[in-house]
Amino acid sequence: MSIESTIIDMAQKARAASIEMATYSSEKKNEALQRIADQIVQSADHIKTENKKDLESAKEMGLTRAMIDRLTISDDVIHSMAEGLQDVIQLKDPVGSVVKTWTRPNGLQVSRMRIPLGVIGIIYESRPNVTIDAASLCLKAGNAVILRGGSEAFYSNQALADIIGRSLNDTGLNKDAAQVVPVKDRSAVNILLKQEECVDLIIPRGGEGLIRFVVEHSKIPVLKHYKGVCHVYVDRGAEHSMADDICFNAKVQRPGVCNAMETMLVHQDEADAFLPRIAKRFKEAGVEIRGCEKTCTILPDAKMATEADWPEEFLDLILSVKVVSDIDHAISHIAKYSSAHTEAIVTMDYSRARKFVKEVDSSVVLVNASTRFNDGGQLGLGAEIGISTYGLANILCIRSNEYKIYGDIF
Amino acid sequence: MSIESTIIDMAQKARAASIEMATYSSEKKNEALQRIADQIVQSADHIKTENKKDLESAKEMGLTRAMIDRLTISDDVIHSMAEGLQDVIQLKDPVGSVVKTWTRPNGLQVSRMRIPLGVIGIIYESRPNVTIDAASLCLKAGNAVILRGGSEAFYSNQALADIIGRSLNDTGLNKDAAQVVPVKDRSAVNILLKQEECVDLIIPRGGEGLIRFVVEHSKIPVLKHYKGVCHVYVDRGAEHSMADDICFNAKVQRPGVCNAMETMLVHQDEADAFLPRIAKRFKEAGVEIRGCEKTCTILPDAKMATEADWPEEFLDLILSVKVVSDIDHAISHIAKYSSAHTEAIVTMDYSRARKFVKEVDSSVVLVNASTRFNDGGQLGLGAEIGISTYGLANILCIRSNEYKIYGDIF
Repeated sequence: MSIESTIIDMAQKARAASIEMATYSSEKKNEALQRIADQIVQSADHIKTENKKDLESAKEMGLTRAMIDRLTISDDVIHSMAEGLQDVIQLKDPVGSVVKTWTRPNGLQVSRMRIPLGVIGIIYESRPNVTIDAASLCLKAGNAVILRGGSEAFYSNQALADIIGRSLNDTGLNKDAAQVVPVKDRSAVNILLKQEECVDLIIPRGGEGLIRFVVEHSKIPVLKHYKGVCHVYVDRGAEHSMADDICFNAKVQRPGVCNAMETMLVHQDEADAFLPRIAKRFKEAGVEIRGCEKTCTILPDAKMATEADWPEEFLDLILSVKVVSDIDHAISHIAKYSSAHTEAIVTMDYSRARKFVKEVDSSVVLVNASTRFNDGGQLGLGAEIGISTYGLANILCIRSNEYKIYGDIF
Repeated sequence: MSIESTIIDMAQKARAASIEMATYSSEKKNEALQRIADQIVQSADHIKTENKKDLESAKEMGLTRAMIDRLTISDDVIHSMAEGLQDVIQLKDPVGSVVKTWTRPNGLQVSRMRIPLGVIGIIYESRPNVTIDAASLCLKAGNAVILRGGSEAFYSNQALADIIGRSLNDTGLNKDAAQVVPVKDRSAVNILLKQEECVDLIIPRGGEGLIRFVVEHSKIPVLKHYKGVCHVYVDRGAEHSMADDICFNAKVQRPGVCNAMETMLVHQDEADAFLPRIAKRFKEAGVEIRGCEKTCTILPDAKMATEADWPEEFLDLILSVKVVSDIDHAISHIAKYSSAHTEAIVTMDYSRARKFVKEVDSSVVLVNASTRFNDGGQLGLGAEIGISTYGLANILCIRSNEYKIYGDIF
């Protein structure tokens, strides 16, 4: 079969399976997920043997140590895949839940019900564990899924695909509900992205380059965000100890993720007292500061920021810092440079908190809380697979009890 | 300026205006809408003069009478545009409404808030009234909008654009929040569809050809549905008088719209009694029936349906009819041929009603109600601009007044 007919055949089978998937009970779906978890543990040796083939080619191709790390299926990875499945089994099944009901003046009763998306295509880099994460979330929510991981993980993904397919089959579910593309060639991705009659949604998972490639070539709607250039604005009158804890958590706790703070904006009236205080703490944690002119006057150790630093997602212990004249200045800086992912204000002023929430256009806007809270689990929205900054609604968080424990709650 | 730089300039101005639009109060937005309504009435003569230019070219180009009808701005059209604006003024402002709030175990209070989409591009055929409908809805919901109507309505749309821009300006709002593309050439559409950095959503409004063109060329997410091939299934044991009323309404009330019934599915145990009854009523209303073999046996006057009739959107007084062996047969026919727009079941059986709602994958699924209820106003969801069959949630409707039993169950 040609690559094209292979992909078209997969897409058509997935479409047919999605109709069945939408009707399976939570019990049945959980049974299949449990079977996948058991099989992963029981077939650990086989999975690791297949994974070795990938690792050997990876070494031959001279992949970096970091890439080889992500590609490796160790006993720990086996264990965490099985555990991840348990987490998904514990999640509430969204399918069929009625989120709102109302009655019209003529007596018509109307309800809004959650339903599966249908067929989801996931395109991701060479991390075999994503195969299990993505498949389990899609199946739990009643979808069929077509998975296409990086070609460096080809044998690992095929081994996992076998386990998933067999487990679905043994549970009496349609095994076509989760398929891994059995083709190494990258042209398979381009063909998959054109199956708009059978595939309802594409979720790319990986770096900005991968996501832009997918958006460029897809005829199917893409759930995406390119990056997280997140800001925290320390307002006039903010309590410094709170601002300190929030900014430190937002930058340092896990700097390589999309909800970490990349730019700190500080009101000019607070800068003289606040900046030296937090700079000391950042220095101890190894954070490099790239500041505006005023910042550099207050913090002589700071490097001078360039225009390129403001829209930059450092994903590292690097922070750009700007002193702003007021909240409007902060909001306009955010409008210009933010990636609309997550923004936070630290303030004691009620009307400025409201203004920030109203005027900042990001998927999550927080008041007196760290940007790190933008996470499905933290917000009580369940597990995540891909994030979109294109929401019809945004989310605002107000931390209402003690602010002191910011570092501890993750 | 080249066409390309004209469009890019518009998109950038719209992006800047959208940031302001998101923060205007409902009062301010309604004031602008009122001013547009007043200006349309006051400038009626000028609008009609500009419209005449379009009508003259239309006649020269030999457009059909139907197209010329849709293009004509009569006093009635002036009046209904002004009235439409009043309706939009009366609508509740969605911006800033908090639809849900919950508190996490750690005390984090989370809310979901409705926000504007940003910049919306509307691409539509040569109906100048859409310029006002689309602009008013987008503005009310806090968006900026770029409008591109069919080139046959060029002068009419420019006249309306002037009124909208001036009214926004006179109200103190950013006039770039609603712009009409000032270029006749069709290449303007292709360029607009590539402005993914500035435009958040494209809504095509028109026939399937226009929508497919837009989807084919757009780099921006498109809110779309191609057509409405809607089904009503008359279940075993359905009350015939109810089935009769629902099917008649669904087919005859307004056959040229997307929520009209195109195919009627009848359970084999009801066909002998039900089909002759409704066929008589359909015949009086001028409905042509294209039936399956069994239908044609029961109704000797019916034409035999061909395979091409089942996925067809007739948009006319034509109905395809199929006798099915049971509800599963009905559901699989729908899965194969429906456009996922609107489907209805007529039944007295509780578990089959539930099964139909659960297993039919359409944007709206109704129990004992006409497909014609899939309408923003009828469902209490406000005015509509573009419909998507890609919802994350579907809607089910139960007409509860006349047939009380259903009102109590769901």
